[in-house]
Amino acid sequence: MRAYSGEKLCGKCFQKSIEDKVRATIIKYNMFKPDDDIVVAVSGGKDSVTLLHTLAQIEKEFPKASLSAVTIDEGIKGYRDEAVKFASENCRKLGVKHTVASFKELFNVDLDALVNALKEKDSGRSGGLSPCAYCGVLRRRALNLAARNAKANKLALGHNLDDEVQTILLNIMHGDALRIARVKPVLEGKHPVFVQRVKPFCEVPEKEIAFLGYLKKIQFQSVPCPYASTALRNDIRVMLNRMEEKHAGTKFTVFKSIEKIRPALEAITKQTTLQKCKVCGEPSADQICKPCQMLQKLGVCAR
Amino acid sequence: MRAYSGEKLCGKCFQKSIEDKVRATIIKYNMFKPDDDIVVAVSGGKDSVTLLHTLAQIEKEFPKASLSAVTIDEGIKGYRDEAVKFASENCRKLGVKHTVASFKELFNVDLDALVNALKEKDSGRSGGLSPCAYCGVLRRRALNLAARNAKANKLALGHNLDDEVQTILLNIMHGDALRIARVKPVLEGKHPVFVQRVKPFCEVPEKEIAFLGYLKKIQFQSVPCPYASTALRNDIRVMLNRMEEKHAGTKFTVFKSIEKIRPALEAITKQTTLQKCKVCGEPSADQICKPCQMLQKLGVCAR
Repeated sequence: MRAYSGEKLCGKCFQKSIEDKVRATIIKYNMFKPDDDIVVAVSGGKDSVTLLHTLAQIEKEFPKASLSAVTIDEGIKGYRDEAVKFASENCRKLGVKHTVASFKELFNVDLDALVNALKEKDSGRSGGLSPCAYCGVLRRRALNLAARNAKANKLALGHNLDDEVQTILLNIMHGDALRIARVKPVLEGKHPVFVQRVKPFCEVPEKEIAFLGYLKKIQFQSVPCPYASTALRNDIRVMLNRMEEKHAGTKFTVFKSIEKIRPALEAITKQTTLQKCKVCGEPSADQICKPCQMLQKLGVCAR
Repeated sequence: MRAYSGEKLCGKCFQKSIEDKVRATIIKYNMFKPDDDIVVAVSGGKDSVTLLHTLAQIEKEFPKASLSAVTIDEGIKGYRDEAVKFASENCRKLGVKHTVASFKELFNVDLDALVNALKEKDSGRSGGLSPCAYCGVLRRRALNLAARNAKANKLALGHNLDDEVQTILLNIMHGDALRIARVKPVLEGKHPVFVQRVKPFCEVPEKEIAFLGYLKKIQFQSVPCPYASTALRNDIRVMLNRMEEKHAGTKFTVFKSIEKIRPALEAITKQTTLQKCKVCGEPSADQICKPCQMLQKLGVCAR
C-alpha cells in the first residue's frame, strides 16, 4: 500500500503504475524527444539497473530513439568489478549495447590509488575532502565523456526521489543551499559538449524502485561502496524516512517545495561563463577544471 | 560546554557570552539605532522574557533609546492569563512599561470563541487550518497595532535559532519553500505602518536561552499552549536536535546556508503592491486583508 496516496495495488498494477509515473515524469520535464540517442548510466546497483529495464520497455515504442548503457569503472577492487558484471548481464538480457569506461583509461589513475594518495596527503589531518567528493567529480566527468563517445544526446541517471530530497537537505545542512539550483530533474549542459542529464526516476520513492526490482526479478549489486563515508547523508536518510513514516508524502512535498524556489536560485547561479581548461581542454569555470585541479592536487596523474 | 565551539564557560562567562552574541547579532543585522523606540513582544514564556532582560541590560547604555513591552492576550483561559502575570511581573522588576492588548478588544473575539467557531465550521471534516494558523495571523496583526500604539519603531521578538531553523525546514516540508524569504533576522515592513520586526536571539540556540534564564533566575511560564497542534514542527524539532547531537553546529549551518539563498527568494517575492483593506483599512496584498478574511470566514466578528 502507498501511504501517501492510499492506493492498494497488485504486483502487475504496481509495475504499471511505476511505468506510468516514469512516463508522466518524462513528459512533465520534457526529458526525451522521439529521436533521442539515450545512454543510461548503469552502475550495476538497484536504481540504475531498474531504470535500464524501465527505459528499455518504454523505448520499444519509439523506433527512432536509441538506447545504450555505460558503466564507469572507478577501479575499486572487490566492489566495482562485481557491479560491472551485473550491469553487463542486464544489458545482455535486454539486448542493450554496453560500454565500460574506466578512471584508469580516462584519468590514468584508479580510485584505489587515488584514495591511497589522498591518505598520504591528508595523514594526521582531519580536514580535506572525502574520497566520495573526488570520485563524484571524476565520475561526472567520466560519464559526460562516455556519453559523448557514445554519440548520445541524453544521459539518463538512476537518481530516485529519496536521492534528490536527501541531496537537497544535505546541501542545506552542509551550508551550501545555493547548490540546490543544480539538483533537478533535467540538467542542461552549460556548454554544447555537456550532454544533458535526465533523471526519469526523480519522482519515484526508493522503496518503490526496490519493490519493482524485486517483482521484475532484476539482479543487481547490493553491496555498498567500501569508501562510502556518508555519515551526514545517512542521518538525513534515516530522518527523512522517519518523517515520511509519520507524515506520509513528506518526500514529495520537499521535492515540490524546492521546485518553487529553484528558478530564483538558478537566476543567481547561472552567470558563470565557461572557458577551456588549460590542462584537458574541457569547458571549465576556472582556468583549470575541477577534475584536473583534483588530480593535480594529489599529484597522481601527469597528463 | 558548547559542542559546536568546544568552549567551556563558567556561569558568569556564559551570561556574558550570550550578551556579547546578542550585541554582535544586533550590529551584524543593523537591528537598532541608538535612539530607537523598542517594544518587546513578551508572551510570558522563556524566550521573550529572557530577551526582555537581555535588552533591558543593553538598553541602559543607550540613553536616547526607549524600551517597553507588550503582551498579546489571545484569550486562552487557564493559559494566557497565567502568562500575562509572568510578563507583568518581569516588567515590574525591570522597570519596563508594560501594556496588554487583547484579541477581544482588537478583533471583538477571543481565541477560545474562535476555536469553537472553527470546530463548528469544520466539524466532521479533516481539512481546514489549525487554530495556530488563525492565531498566528491575528497575533502578528495585534503585535503590529500594539507596537504602533506604543509609538515604537522597532518590535523585538524572542525567536531563537531553533525557532528560525525549524520554521525554515517546516516551510520546506510543508511545500512552501518560498516563505523562507520571510524567515529572517530583520523583517522590514512593506508599508510605513508596519513596524520593523527584529529578532536579537536569532543566533542563540534555544538550550542556551533556557540556561541563561536559569542562571538569571528568571520566572516565566513553561506550560505549553493547550491549542498547540505542532505535530510536524515537533518532529522537526526532535530531528534537528538529533542532527545537532551527532553533527554539532547543524542549526547554525542551516541558518547560514539559508542566508545565502534568501536574497534570491526575496527578489521574486517582493513584487506585491499593497492596497488598503476594505474592511479595516490596514495595508493588504488583497482587497481584504488576511486577518479580516479569517474573521469573516468564521463569521464571529462584525466590524
